[in-house]
Amino acid sequence: MSYNLLKGKRGIIFGALNEDSIAWKVAEKAYEEGAQLVLTNTSVAIRMGSLDKLAQKTGAKIVPADATKIEELERLYNEAMEYLGGKIDFILHSIGMSPNVRKKKPYDNINYEYFHQTLEISALSFHKLLQVAKQNDVINEWGSVVALTYIAAQRTLTGYNDMAEAKALLESIARSFGYIYGREKRVRINTISQSPTETTAGKAIKGMDSLLDFSERMSPLGNASAEDCANYCVTLFSDLTKKVTMQTLYHDGGFSNMGMSERAMHQYDKSFDNY
Amino acid sequence: MSYNLLKGKRGIIFGALNEDSIAWKVAEKAYEEGAQLVLTNTSVAIRMGSLDKLAQKTGAKIVPADATKIEELERLYNEAMEYLGGKIDFILHSIGMSPNVRKKKPYDNINYEYFHQTLEISALSFHKLLQVAKQNDVINEWGSVVALTYIAAQRTLTGYNDMAEAKALLESIARSFGYIYGREKRVRINTISQSPTETTAGKAIKGMDSLLDFSERMSPLGNASAEDCANYCVTLFSDLTKKVTMQTLYHDGGFSNMGMSERAMHQYDKSFDNY
Amino acid sequence: MSYNLLKGKRGIIFGALNEDSIAWKVAEKAYEEGAQLVLTNTSVAIRMGSLDKLAQKTGAKIVPADATKIEELERLYNEAMEYLGGKIDFILHSIGMSPNVRKKKPYDNINYEYFHQTLEISALSFHKLLQVAKQNDVINEWGSVVALTYIAAQRTLTGYNDMAEAKALLESIARSFGYIYGREKRVRINTISQSPTETTAGKAIKGMDSLLDFSERMSPLGNASAEDCANYCVTLFSDLTKKVTMQTLYHDGGFSNMGMSERAMHQYDKSFDNY
Amino acid sequence: MSYNLLKGKRGIIFGALNEDSIAWKVAEKAYEEGAQLVLTNTSVAIRMGSLDKLAQKTGAKIVPADATKIEELERLYNEAMEYLGGKIDFILHSIGMSPNVRKKKPYDNINYEYFHQTLEISALSFHKLLQVAKQNDVINEWGSVVALTYIAAQRTLTGYNDMAEAKALLESIARSFGYIYGREKRVRINTISQSPTETTAGKAIKGMDSLLDFSERMSPLGNASAEDCANYCVTLFSDLTKKVTMQTLYHDGGFSNMGMSERAMHQYDKSFDNY
Repeated sequence: MSYNLLKGKRGIIFGALNEDSIAWKVAEKAYEEGAQLVLTNTSVAIRMGSLDKLAQKTGAKIVPADATKIEELERLYNEAMEYLGGKIDFILHSIGMSPNVRKKKPYDNINYEYFHQTLEISALSFHKLLQVAKQNDVINEWGSVVALTYIAAQRTLTGYNDMAEAKALLESIARSFGYIYGREKRVRINTISQSPTETTAGKAIKGMDSLLDFSERMSPLGNASAEDCANYCVTLFSDLTKKVTMQTLYHDGGFSNMGMSERAMHQYDKSFDNY
Repeated sequence: MSYNLLKGKRGIIFGALNEDSIAWKVAEKAYEEGAQLVLTNTSVAIRMGSLDKLAQKTGAKIVPADATKIEELERLYNEAMEYLGGKIDFILHSIGMSPNVRKKKPYDNINYEYFHQTLEISALSFHKLLQVAKQNDVINEWGSVVALTYIAAQRTLTGYNDMAEAKALLESIARSFGYIYGREKRVRINTISQSPTETTAGKAIKGMDSLLDFSERMSPLGNASAEDCANYCVTLFSDLTKKVTMQTLYHDGGFSNMGMSERAMHQYDKSFDNY
Repeated sequence: MSYNLLKGKRGIIFGALNEDSIAWKVAEKAYEEGAQLVLTNTSVAIRMGSLDKLAQKTGAKIVPADATKIEELERLYNEAMEYLGGKIDFILHSIGMSPNVRKKKPYDNINYEYFHQTLEISALSFHKLLQVAKQNDVINEWGSVVALTYIAAQRTLTGYNDMAEAKALLESIARSFGYIYGREKRVRINTISQSPTETTAGKAIKGMDSLLDFSERMSPLGNASAEDCANYCVTLFSDLTKKVTMQTLYHDGGFSNMGMSERAMHQYDKSFDNY
Repeated sequence: MSYNLLKGKRGIIFGALNEDSIAWKVAEKAYEEGAQLVLTNTSVAIRMGSLDKLAQKTGAKIVPADATKIEELERLYNEAMEYLGGKIDFILHSIGMSPNVRKKKPYDNINYEYFHQTLEISALSFHKLLQVAKQNDVINEWGSVVALTYIAAQRTLTGYNDMAEAKALLESIARSFGYIYGREKRVRINTISQSPTETTAGKAIKGMDSLLDFSERMSPLGNASAEDCANYCVTLFSDLTKKVTMQTLYHDGGFSNMGMSERAMHQYDKSFDNY
């Protein structure tokens, strides 16, 4: 079912890899809601994943780009505006990667070169795509930019490592750039703090299954899925949320404001049963 | 323009008084988006205001009710379900009043009977409408309840008096009841923390003009209007935001995350010009 | 060991009942640090508890007072200033009680008369003691007032019931009155958000043992004890923290900023062992 | 006047430059309170400033070190432990610098190499000093580490540029490392979010005078000075605050929880007088 919420709008989706990706679901949903799309990811990710399939399904063009490279962003925006026939109305940033997590460097024996890479890929890429967009006047007035984040930016989760810092940085960039892009071009910038989600990236986190279970039982509405997130994204891309900006928006079934639920406590109590 | 976001949905709007009311705009917008409505307010407010006009415009029924009285809430829900032909999908709570503000009792010489009234009318009424709804199973699964709040719940504003406490209480109720109603019936409960708005209630706040100006200059997107708020509300009532619950959602053009803007600082600096 | 941090200071401690009370420990510690004290509680609590013993130990006078009654607060302050020989430098508010919790009224079948009592006793009493103090100019410049709170004010915990609202209200009062008392008399007002603690009041909370265990394993430094809290309080009463005001200060071994610890996750995982 | 709060404790102070530095005041105060100290800064800063004078006054040793260099941190810790005669009890991190601010690169035309330098110097240096300390077991159990931060981590201030991101990152590191260092060695890690302060670094911020004035009028207790901050620091280094960790502690006269004060509004209103 479609509401045509994004009819006539042009969007760029960063970071879809395969059908499990949140960005994939956002692209599908945005297309359903009437948007025209350009999809982008690094060349490596495009080879590894199945972005072609998504492009076909959504009539989108794929433009490979490394979001940490200015010139590739410039080329991306040029090709996107040409393909879509005008300036951009919305952007999704769904990019995150930590070499420290991948190479199992614990947080108290971290590799600092990797740390900078984590920040560069997962957070500064967001500043870059915004700066390049603003300097080239790529986004329409009242455009909407959303990046995906996680509650690790506020609360420490064992094993999440330097991605916590990347997400804190990402949310700060959303505020700082949201102020400037808002005052000058009415562009709004927000982050969605999503439930843990079983994407390819999510599965890489140590102890993800336990976390998913705990999070599911803590959240009164259960974890938000990738599809749920896509639904939420289209409201933020739409013209109905024009005055929401610089926010971290929790989309997590209530998890963020829970201290302890009956269900999680009940499960936790079982751990003592045989002791 | 309508997206039919609320097609087939039944809603109850508490607190519309006249055309300046946020609740009024929400009713208009929800109607545009396909919802069927019942409007409610106290008998006194209905006499003072112009709710009839809104009812005509939106094909809504008016059911007078004092939201602090259990039996009146029960009657309201019964009449609403009868008129609308089924259970309720969304509710807006836009109710606030402080006798201390009205009678100019300063916060450090407050009248405690009034203080309880402020809390009763502006916050406990929200608990009551939720408790009565839940006990009588009035709201459909995945229904959505929204209450309007203000950043005074987090940060002190001179002159806002005990309404700060009422809003803090209101947001706490949204969390506590959001947990219970969510886990048992999938009903989500959120508050929208709205820019200062020139409603009849807003105009009663001392120094409102100065605050509006400051807030406008601090917010990169300017203050959110009542119409903007109505737009945002319909996204929260829609099926696209099912996993957002227990949140205080800032709808304020960015104000809540600003420390100091160039525009506000520039204006502030002018105050020293002749000294 | 004493630092004489409170040498020459006069304080009033509300809410000590018996040796398990946080207020008891605060009184002991404040006395050790050189303060002269007046202890107060309701007549009923004084009969039930063992305040006499504390008074002897700390050279304090006991003045019975119901903190919800203006005239009793006035009498308390008068007797306190007379006994102590001057104006007051610090006050501890450690008062909380919910008839709904006591009578096992669940949050979605709450008794509203009780709800008002919860708010009156646990939160408005704080406003009252501040208002009476300010109107009678009871507190010295740069005096310090602390109230005890709990993270339920921010995050929902199953079973905590309307005490969540009372604590949210309490913290809001600390901000609102902190602004006014600060600007006019340099008095600072803060709340300490303490780990769950095995006091007589704490033990009344349903599922307290489970919560204590979970909280202990989540907090990198473990739960803060009543003694720990007393230590922290004296720093806030001292002259070393003069510019801290209107804050909710988490004193909880790190719990408030944890999403998931290794220890808690490990324990949680055990719950699945035999299934 | 001294309480001997830090008697027998050994501390390292990073970042004192001259008498205006907060770190300078902290060193003086810690010394007064009985601590033995090592002072450190980069060689360049030591040449530019007057650290010798501070060292003489406080009987401290100066050990030059660039806090972004692992081997220099190792040498620093070794020399410090040797000079002080044992492991370290407390550390102050007061380091921040943005080449983008210095070279007037606006936030939407930022230099990314500089951005990484801002983060490296102002935030990753904090991770480095913690990681090197933990790996070499430099800090005693229940030791205390404090870093100075600013509310720009939460709210955007015009002109603060990428220092906002650096402070957000710094606070995140305090949480993440606070969890690990806490659970393993009982070391607590906090940040103090200080009022804008007229230090050499502070004076570099564009529009600092206006900000100081606004902040002073907004804060019920006025801006916290460098001396105030030093007082607060010693409470956090002391044994009285052992269960406070992973927190951002606002030390700002109440600013952080103000929405609008009478004084600031009054001043703001004057700006319209002649228009």
